[in-house]
Amino acid sequence: MALIDLSKQVALGIDIGGTNTKYGLVNHRGEILSKGKIRTEKFEVVEDFIQELYDNIHPLIQQHCQDKVLEGIGVGAPNANYYNGTIEHAPNLKWKGVVPFAKLMSEKFGYPCKMTNDANAAALGEMMYGAARGMKDFIMVTLGTGVGSGIVCGGNLVYGHDGFAGELGHTIVKPNGRKHWSTGSEGSLEAYASATGIAITARKMRAEFPESLLNRYNEDEINSRTVHVCALEGDPTAIEVFRYTGQKLGEALANFVMFSSPQAILLFGGVIKAGDFILKPTRLHMERNLLPIFRGKVKLVFSELDEADAAILGASALVWENM
Amino acid sequence: MALIDLSKQVALGIDIGGTNTKYGLVNHRGEILSKGKIRTEKFEVVEDFIQELYDNIHPLIQQHCQDKVLEGIGVGAPNANYYNGTIEHAPNLKWKGVVPFAKLMSEKFGYPCKMTNDANAAALGEMMYGAARGMKDFIMVTLGTGVGSGIVCGGNLVYGHDGFAGELGHTIVKPNGRKHWSTGSEGSLEAYASATGIAITARKMRAEFPESLLNRYNEDEINSRTVHVCALEGDPTAIEVFRYTGQKLGEALANFVMFSSPQAILLFGGVIKAGDFILKPTRLHMERNLLPIFRGKVKLVFSELDEADAAILGASALVWENM
Repeated sequence: MALIDLSKQVALGIDIGGTNTKYGLVNHRGEILSKGKIRTEKFEVVEDFIQELYDNIHPLIQQHCQDKVLEGIGVGAPNANYYNGTIEHAPNLKWKGVVPFAKLMSEKFGYPCKMTNDANAAALGEMMYGAARGMKDFIMVTLGTGVGSGIVCGGNLVYGHDGFAGELGHTIVKPNGRKHWSTGSEGSLEAYASATGIAITARKMRAEFPESLLNRYNEDEINSRTVHVCALEGDPTAIEVFRYTGQKLGEALANFVMFSSPQAILLFGGVIKAGDFILKPTRLHMERNLLPIFRGKVKLVFSELDEADAAILGASALVWENM
Repeated sequence: MALIDLSKQVALGIDIGGTNTKYGLVNHRGEILSKGKIRTEKFEVVEDFIQELYDNIHPLIQQHCQDKVLEGIGVGAPNANYYNGTIEHAPNLKWKGVVPFAKLMSEKFGYPCKMTNDANAAALGEMMYGAARGMKDFIMVTLGTGVGSGIVCGGNLVYGHDGFAGELGHTIVKPNGRKHWSTGSEGSLEAYASATGIAITARKMRAEFPESLLNRYNEDEINSRTVHVCALEGDPTAIEVFRYTGQKLGEALANFVMFSSPQAILLFGGVIKAGDFILKPTRLHMERNLLPIFRGKVKLVFSELDEADAAILGASALVWENM
């Protein structure tokens, strides 16, 4: 058997968002050797987008892979299908229908290409380089503009029969509850625990409490950052916004725990900047909704990965998965 | 490599319930060569129980395994821990604390012994011999006195980090809802969709509708069977009991689908005798709570295994798992 020198292996990680696409060459230790970004929304045609990626990345590969081996390409993208390597009807991207993205990438770059959605990629990144190293059972929940999730059971990412598993943001936490601005569902986790949901809660609550510091902002300035600022100044309404959000999130997490009994739940994304304002009520309401056999067992922690790099690292981790 | 003659292999499956324990010798095709049962509740001491099992089963092994090989023992039991082979604080059994059941069995019988809870065993049985043959992603939900579940992702049963995954009956489907008679939780799936929960719903609804046929029964005769009898006679109240139950169950199933995206959900247990009275509203409310990408994809079907034998078959399937 030939010995494999891990230090010589490199993966290309690409994270496609609605606005920007980030990419980086990553080694086995999760160090980014080189990175960059292009604007996703500039390209109406997917082939043009891939050409732009190639023009940007090919020189980096030539520069960094003279004494190293590029093992492959991992891509995190909204509505990416792990099994087919396609992007399917992604609402935030301009390329409509079912796009055979992995095939097009592979043909252009000459390397194998694997894809999954951004939250699954983030979970792989945590397992490979972050707070979930060595864990075989954990759930990653990303609290950003939306709520995403990646679920690892028995050391494997849960993809489901069609590659779309792990849409925990769309599970219903309050039947007949708040209507979701995009899906139309009523009472989903995302409607409460995303940055968007927190802003809705904050706007409602500041209207009820005229003395709240939240009232010093214009309507469009209300977001999880400004709520956090007010909470730090001791504003009870702002603190209640996070407590309420944490309650809804904690109730949802309890249900997830009784599904897959994870060792840890990792929280990630802009919302976690609120720190204990959100973490403490989340933990409390998770625990009180658990069966006794699950109580006090699940670590509820924040991600260890730098948010700016996590998406690239996660996408690159797809290349090492099952290697 | 030696050829293995599957037709010569036999597994011993044992299903431990609070009242009775059933056992059977099962071959690779799911045929029960011989079976029997003993009373669980007769034995205050677990060693006496195991002795009784041995006295009953050892002659069967001698009789049936002259030209066959007993590969091992699989046990389904409440609160069984797959990783440790223990039964831990099972409320319905007389043996208190943590019982090293697999070890005791193995020492007495001289064969390896694996354990899991009854619902997980049932899921393995379906995968091996029943409606889930060939499926890698499905969820089994047992609707009996309680609500149990077994979850298969990527071809593997989900045990979780501690062996206790898959307690879907205790997930909360209606925050601050009906108080559970035993756990004290408010609004769990089991409080609505178990036979016990259906009886509670039926007692409430018949009090609201004096003309309901359900009122011809005594209070203690109200159960899912008598509700079914009235539904078959066209009683609108009885039909509404199942519709309401199906709504709660369907809402819960939608959340499960968005977790692991299974190819199918299998329903099992006494409650499914109500047939379409429960299946149709369950399917409707599952579908309407799903994100569009999941709609119309998940088969919602009843178990194919004979209820009397399913527990034995499921326990025996533990022996073949990962073989």
